[in-house]
Amino acid sequence: MGWDKKDIFGIEGLTKEELFTILKISKYYKDSMKLKPAKSFTLLQGYTIVNMFFEASTRTRVSFEVAEKRMGAFTINFDVEMSSVKKGETFVDTIKTINAMQVDAIVIRHSDCGIPQLTKKYFSGSVLNAGDGTHEHPTQTLLDLLSMWEHIKCFEDIHVGIVGDILYSRVARSLIIGLKTLGTKVSLIGPPTLLPEYFKDWGVNIYYKLDDIISELDIIYIYRIQKERAELLRPAIPSIGDFAKLYQLNEPRMEKAKKDALIMHPGPAIRDSEVSTAIYDSKRCLALDQVTSGVAVRMALLQLLLKGEINNA
Amino acid sequence: MGWDKKDIFGIEGLTKEELFTILKISKYYKDSMKLKPAKSFTLLQGYTIVNMFFEASTRTRVSFEVAEKRMGAFTINFDVEMSSVKKGETFVDTIKTINAMQVDAIVIRHSDCGIPQLTKKYFSGSVLNAGDGTHEHPTQTLLDLLSMWEHIKCFEDIHVGIVGDILYSRVARSLIIGLKTLGTKVSLIGPPTLLPEYFKDWGVNIYYKLDDIISELDIIYIYRIQKERAELLRPAIPSIGDFAKLYQLNEPRMEKAKKDALIMHPGPAIRDSEVSTAIYDSKRCLALDQVTSGVAVRMALLQLLLKGEINNA
Amino acid sequence: MGWDKKDIFGIEGLTKEELFTILKISKYYKDSMKLKPAKSFTLLQGYTIVNMFFEASTRTRVSFEVAEKRMGAFTINFDVEMSSVKKGETFVDTIKTINAMQVDAIVIRHSDCGIPQLTKKYFSGSVLNAGDGTHEHPTQTLLDLLSMWEHIKCFEDIHVGIVGDILYSRVARSLIIGLKTLGTKVSLIGPPTLLPEYFKDWGVNIYYKLDDIISELDIIYIYRIQKERAELLRPAIPSIGDFAKLYQLNEPRMEKAKKDALIMHPGPAIRDSEVSTAIYDSKRCLALDQVTSGVAVRMALLQLLLKGEINNA
Repeated sequence: MGWDKKDIFGIEGLTKEELFTILKISKYYKDSMKLKPAKSFTLLQGYTIVNMFFEASTRTRVSFEVAEKRMGAFTINFDVEMSSVKKGETFVDTIKTINAMQVDAIVIRHSDCGIPQLTKKYFSGSVLNAGDGTHEHPTQTLLDLLSMWEHIKCFEDIHVGIVGDILYSRVARSLIIGLKTLGTKVSLIGPPTLLPEYFKDWGVNIYYKLDDIISELDIIYIYRIQKERAELLRPAIPSIGDFAKLYQLNEPRMEKAKKDALIMHPGPAIRDSEVSTAIYDSKRCLALDQVTSGVAVRMALLQLLLKGEINNA
Repeated sequence: MGWDKKDIFGIEGLTKEELFTILKISKYYKDSMKLKPAKSFTLLQGYTIVNMFFEASTRTRVSFEVAEKRMGAFTINFDVEMSSVKKGETFVDTIKTINAMQVDAIVIRHSDCGIPQLTKKYFSGSVLNAGDGTHEHPTQTLLDLLSMWEHIKCFEDIHVGIVGDILYSRVARSLIIGLKTLGTKVSLIGPPTLLPEYFKDWGVNIYYKLDDIISELDIIYIYRIQKERAELLRPAIPSIGDFAKLYQLNEPRMEKAKKDALIMHPGPAIRDSEVSTAIYDSKRCLALDQVTSGVAVRMALLQLLLKGEINNA
Repeated sequence: MGWDKKDIFGIEGLTKEELFTILKISKYYKDSMKLKPAKSFTLLQGYTIVNMFFEASTRTRVSFEVAEKRMGAFTINFDVEMSSVKKGETFVDTIKTINAMQVDAIVIRHSDCGIPQLTKKYFSGSVLNAGDGTHEHPTQTLLDLLSMWEHIKCFEDIHVGIVGDILYSRVARSLIIGLKTLGTKVSLIGPPTLLPEYFKDWGVNIYYKLDDIISELDIIYIYRIQKERAELLRPAIPSIGDFAKLYQLNEPRMEKAKKDALIMHPGPAIRDSEVSTAIYDSKRCLALDQVTSGVAVRMALLQLLLKGEINNA
């Protein structure tokens, strides 16, 4: 059996089978990273990939570049500051220009939702969404799922709590969709202003206090308040102090959690804001394992989307 | 027969035979881009190329980097913001420093005319001018000629009209020289303030209204007003509205053109300023084909200048 | 015999034998740069190196990137402007993130002293200090020593004068340590405010006027006033005019020097400030040879630190 998708815009639309195909290949690449140096491949030799990041990023941009290079591809970083966008060229014309250079894939991060789909309209290669506005961040979710999968027995037997300003979070949105596709029980925890009732349509539970549900969670997924994304909606967001009181993951609060509950964080973390330093640096926190999974997942996706091969799954 | 030029400062000084040698090799590389992925080569394996862009650019910088990588070279982007120029080092010392690292080629774009020649004085490798002030932009012209060549029978049988603020345009300057070398009939069209009488010394015709000559043109070459370059000379430039009335390429105006007249634009285009969206997106507009030609022409030049080989011409 | 150090934080702690091992391997790579194109290697194929420059640099950043590429490694430039540091992530978390991607080496420049050692605490690969605050700049010293070694018979027979604002200079600090380790006679020359008495503890001589000692020097090492580093200590630094009068290396002053005295400068030079143009461009000035040595020394260090091999020494 092959793989027919050429792009990844989001987790929405991926089947359970497809998710597992990606995870299995990702596992193969994650194992390959245990060698010193990490194993590199020639599968994408001759392929040209352009990384277009219109928003700040360390881990995602560098992670993609590492993955692309280890797969053997040519990587080009499109420098937004130095670009023709300055000269008044439309975004669409920029994409058409990249397309005319016979580029094989575009990795794109943008503050507007739907930009990857717009990119695809004018680009004949593969498009990989590296985060679009408040919409989706699919490679983040795939790496989250990979790190979970390596630590649990079965997605259907666990209960994941996602804590934070879910309303504006593409990370949460993608993760919820992925976990529901895999049959996982999901609870969302945050202030009412950031957790409207209609979120229940996703088949998730909603809690306004972390203490009300923490004892039942197998995985507690927490992340920083997206200040830059929620700037205009400030009244909806509690102060850092108020947020910490109800939602910060710290040692007293973790006393109430299951003994083997795991903590996940997509990074970057604001220490002692959404998570205490002691908890973030503890062994039960998978934050750095997630980073390793990130490179592996991106290598797997490049293989699937550009080559359509699933032979190492 | 070999190739003896090590640098490309401009189109001026290239013979008709040399232009055709470049075009033939470029055609070979353009064909190689039809494969998926575009074919890559090892001809420049071990060669180090530094891209120094002192002016904003998408297409030219990325196009050069794609070309260099597909030829097998090491590419280094010299980041102007992060450079020693900040610490007060002279430009000449920066070039000498790059030279002392045994770099094989410098691709340079700069807002001052003559910088590539200055670079060459202190650099023993090849210098490729990627646009210097209002002087020349030779790789742009070579790609323009390649796209023309693939769509016409003979350069001597066509009439090319170049529309815009030619006075400040390195693109127009290089193109006029190239076309005259190939024996093409050239007309320049623009407001009198941007088209001084002495331009006729180049053996071209001058028109102040596009409507006066459009019916005779086989290729209409148009580009945006170089706001950033003409900042200090603003009074000479008509308003966008006035310019559009007389020179914008739009559907009503194209009614008067030959049925098979082609449109070319070096990009980036300001839609509905110098060209209407309908015309720019029409099949007769070669703008994207020009982008593809750009990568091919740069690959060909790298081969010729660094290796002196014309065997695939 | 092998090599056991995995990092280079400074010259301090390196033995005379280790310095010569590095110099011998560097000489091998410098010779390899005489070919056209410079010879490239596959020794570091599959290794991933991240260049993190938190301070402006041309020669050091580009030199490292050239060295890494010619050794066959994957190179990633960590863009400080586009990084998660903007989002409030701590420096330590950024390093842990890079580490989790199974990166093999970090090259780091930072305005704070000790950052490379801090980096090492959270990074399991090799750390190469590319300059930390006023502390050390070891690769600069190694390249200086290589250029010296090729022009002298024996480090123990020469007298090196280091001229400038030594108090704030990591370049001078590293060089003094290196030269003393090799048994070289060293004199420091500069204004009293920048040359405290306790510098004598290093076993060096101190002079406040270059004219008092210039006739005895075999090598005169001069560099620019580090305006950006000494900003807060301005009263301590004489005006450019005053400095030039006492310390500028110019033709009248060089009349007093030994006939075969050599001049060295780490660059970037501010012409006609610390050194006259005529002297800087004269054959006795090794500034550009030092740049060539820089690439070679960095290639040698990458071999030693990442592979532990000394076979070509």
